[in-house]
Amino acid sequence: MEKSKIQNPKLIDSVLTQLPTINALKQPTSSAWVEQAIANLDIILLDHSHCERKAAGVALNMMFRYPSNTKMVRELTAIAREELEHFELVNQWLERRNIPLAPLPPPPYGAGLKAQVRPKEPERFLDSLLVTGLIEARSHERLGLLAAHCPEPELAKFYRGLMASEARHYGIYWVLAATYFDKEIVMQRLDELAIVESELLANLHPEPRIHS
Amino acid sequence: MEKSKIQNPKLIDSVLTQLPTINALKQPTSSAWVEQAIANLDIILLDHSHCERKAAGVALNMMFRYPSNTKMVRELTAIAREELEHFELVNQWLERRNIPLAPLPPPPYGAGLKAQVRPKEPERFLDSLLVTGLIEARSHERLGLLAAHCPEPELAKFYRGLMASEARHYGIYWVLAATYFDKEIVMQRLDELAIVESELLANLHPEPRIHS
Repeated sequence: MEKSKIQNPKLIDSVLTQLPTINALKQPTSSAWVEQAIANLDIILLDHSHCERKAAGVALNMMFRYPSNTKMVRELTAIAREELEHFELVNQWLERRNIPLAPLPPPPYGAGLKAQVRPKEPERFLDSLLVTGLIEARSHERLGLLAAHCPEPELAKFYRGLMASEARHYGIYWVLAATYFDKEIVMQRLDELAIVESELLANLHPEPRIHS
Repeated sequence: MEKSKIQNPKLIDSVLTQLPTINALKQPTSSAWVEQAIANLDIILLDHSHCERKAAGVALNMMFRYPSNTKMVRELTAIAREELEHFELVNQWLERRNIPLAPLPPPPYGAGLKAQVRPKEPERFLDSLLVTGLIEARSHERLGLLAAHCPEPELAKFYRGLMASEARHYGIYWVLAATYFDKEIVMQRLDELAIVESELLANLHPEPRIHS
């Protein structure tokens, strides 16, 4: 695969530093992930489709579990709608590239983070919000890297277009955590979970995935 | 399936009569249900909110279970997005009427229909499509009754606005069944399930619900 060119690194950097996303992530994504992803754009697109559907599912599941939390329900309805819209857009890319929809074994990342969610309420609610927020933050970082390094301008533009939403979603999960829990507790738990999140990505998963 | 919103009521009537919606229901809703619903509009609105969220959840679950069925995934993504939009609209009505979001024990209807879904594939897939379609058909009929009998003009108008979607959703589930299965088998199974569906509603559930 041809060595990729960074499309507009200054603009991307300035967007990234304005958002609180990067602060939440303890370790930046390795260049090894970028190389693996750019060399496997079709698989990354298929995995991305699964990620968008899963993200909508996670939002909906939280709405089922906590149906009386009005602010949360309102925010997560908007997120779920947006994830489904992105799912549709990614699927259009798959169709354009003749990539059939197919199951894809997930990397250990999601299950590893889910294992951190404490089973008892209200800890379960807090951890669910923060873990989901961290996944959104990492997605934002990685879509940004795809946008910067993807050698296909149209696809790079598509990734750039999705980045802002992922950052916003991260922000919403974080704000929801701070709505329902004491901010000190939120910050401390976010810190703990963010360490695990980065550890889970310390060794590149051999299969190319958004969260490998 | 055509996704555009139909504005002209005459056109809606002609579309509805073309659809097998009404024919699918073995028994029309009783006037006892209408009386119960009209006397409990607030609870019906709250239950309706749960129904819309559940409908989005059902569509999403099928997308998780059959991720390679491209036509199904495309159609159900659109349905899930629309159910979430309706969920948001119903929740705005709840807010306007100061009805807090709260859990509500469901009537036996949903579980009764779910029990009819045969556990083995491909029967499970066929039954899931048909059962979901029947629920949409019944919702269409009952929202129509609410639209016709609701004493509050604004709310009646709201119900009228949702009816076309429910009919369309029923049509999509039916078309999907006919896409993946032999039409004879679909018609025979739909007939069996429709009998059960009407039986489940034969005795009015004491709690006012969309499907009581």
